[in-house]
Amino acid sequence: MTYCVGVKLDAGLVFLSDSRTNAGLDQIGTFRKMMIYERPGDRFMVMLSAGNLSISQQVREILQVEQIDDGDKPPITIWNATSMFDAARVLGAAIRRIHDQDGAALKKSGLDFNASMIFGGQIQGEAMRLFLVYSAGNFIEATRETCFFQVGESKYGKPVLDRMMRPSTPLDEAAKCVLVSMDSTLKSNLSVGLPLDLVVYEAEKLESSQVVCIDERNPYFQMIRTTWGDKLREVFESIDDPQWNAGTAAQAPLCVPSQRYEAMKKITHPAEKLV
Amino acid sequence: MTYCVGVKLDAGLVFLSDSRTNAGLDQIGTFRKMMIYERPGDRFMVMLSAGNLSISQQVREILQVEQIDDGDKPPITIWNATSMFDAARVLGAAIRRIHDQDGAALKKSGLDFNASMIFGGQIQGEAMRLFLVYSAGNFIEATRETCFFQVGESKYGKPVLDRMMRPSTPLDEAAKCVLVSMDSTLKSNLSVGLPLDLVVYEAEKLESSQVVCIDERNPYFQMIRTTWGDKLREVFESIDDPQWNAGTAAQAPLCVPSQRYEAMKKITHPAEKLV
Repeated sequence: MTYCVGVKLDAGLVFLSDSRTNAGLDQIGTFRKMMIYERPGDRFMVMLSAGNLSISQQVREILQVEQIDDGDKPPITIWNATSMFDAARVLGAAIRRIHDQDGAALKKSGLDFNASMIFGGQIQGEAMRLFLVYSAGNFIEATRETCFFQVGESKYGKPVLDRMMRPSTPLDEAAKCVLVSMDSTLKSNLSVGLPLDLVVYEAEKLESSQVVCIDERNPYFQMIRTTWGDKLREVFESIDDPQWNAGTAAQAPLCVPSQRYEAMKKITHPAEKLV
Repeated sequence: MTYCVGVKLDAGLVFLSDSRTNAGLDQIGTFRKMMIYERPGDRFMVMLSAGNLSISQQVREILQVEQIDDGDKPPITIWNATSMFDAARVLGAAIRRIHDQDGAALKKSGLDFNASMIFGGQIQGEAMRLFLVYSAGNFIEATRETCFFQVGESKYGKPVLDRMMRPSTPLDEAAKCVLVSMDSTLKSNLSVGLPLDLVVYEAEKLESSQVVCIDERNPYFQMIRTTWGDKLREVFESIDDPQWNAGTAAQAPLCVPSQRYEAMKKITHPAEKLV
């Protein structure tokens, strides 16, 4: 499996991916799922991939040479596209090319054509953009209302993103947030694993030096893993346990007879039916 | 969808279920997923169900009359079983009966025979037990190492259970924990909804009066929903943001050049390939 997350903030973009792949539980490998395409001063783009590794590796391989028609003008590539929208179209075309090539054979073997990509960045003259590209080559774009995309094993790490991530979140806080989200995922799912690849891109820079590969020895991630668990426990313990009856005035009761919280009906003998 | 959780602790058992069912997004209903079977002083059993509602409702209906052969002795039912293990076998037999009756027709319509149940309780003369019963009627039992089972939309709510739930957890704290787990699930998935059914069973009691139906007006659950979110944010903010360079002595750096956290290789021009 895989867990990747991409976030678009007012201040910039944040991307995080794990590096575990597996085919069953006894065939586990480490592969990078993040690619960075950078021409400083001109464009900075990041792709994160999930799904069938043979598909995503081929897509990466051909993305460098993929091109789409643009009428009389030269064909569009990720290196000459004048918008991230066009660059995402090139990525969609690359996925469709691999589908044409491998889709039928995969289907014969009972495999879905399973691939999804997070693709974002900035091209000079345009604002930053972030896309989620599906296996059919179609895509959607992040907005202020929905400012992050996840691919792969996304559920364990979603609650903290739902609660914390806003377009106004500062970049470093967003980096912390995606690392906490990854920590929850690592803790609950064996098929997501270290090392992690993290990129933070500051708006309008058109390059980034904030690129790091995080392994088990990374001091900051070690701190997150320990501190978050400990503090969660503190918070958890600081919340009152439920009081079954009306409780004290200071506490919110779990069971208030006057508010129709009567016990549910039980089945108490063999002949009884509960409808 | 559905979210149900059952926990077996040294001090007793805790069960929580939501009540939303859906067939697509535009066909949403409210159905109880918890059934309580109680003969005070003799046995106390709870069943939580997830999956196809037509299957789980039929299983409930026939569970009251289902019986399995016991050689020369009278057939075993959930009301005369002398162990929870036998009661779980009766439940498995009920599921298999519905499979024999409906499985082929469901398959013709392209539907899996999809049902899973959490079933636990205590019968006089035996310790408390907790089972997860699958759609084939087979089942597994909770142990000290794995003291909770979830069915349905389980992933959003799993991290907090993984972190907090131990066999030694007191009953009220466990009730708080499953409510926090449910809160995370409600927040991230539309197909899980109020009201909730919660039961807390104290070991050796062979009955329970701690049974409550929790709706949006429940003061304790309202408090959990507000407080947990607020406190999570406080904890999150109390953790240092990452320092890209070595940082101060007091902080754990994200990027330590001396420890081989060099930047990942980027692709910087069209002709370049990254292997």
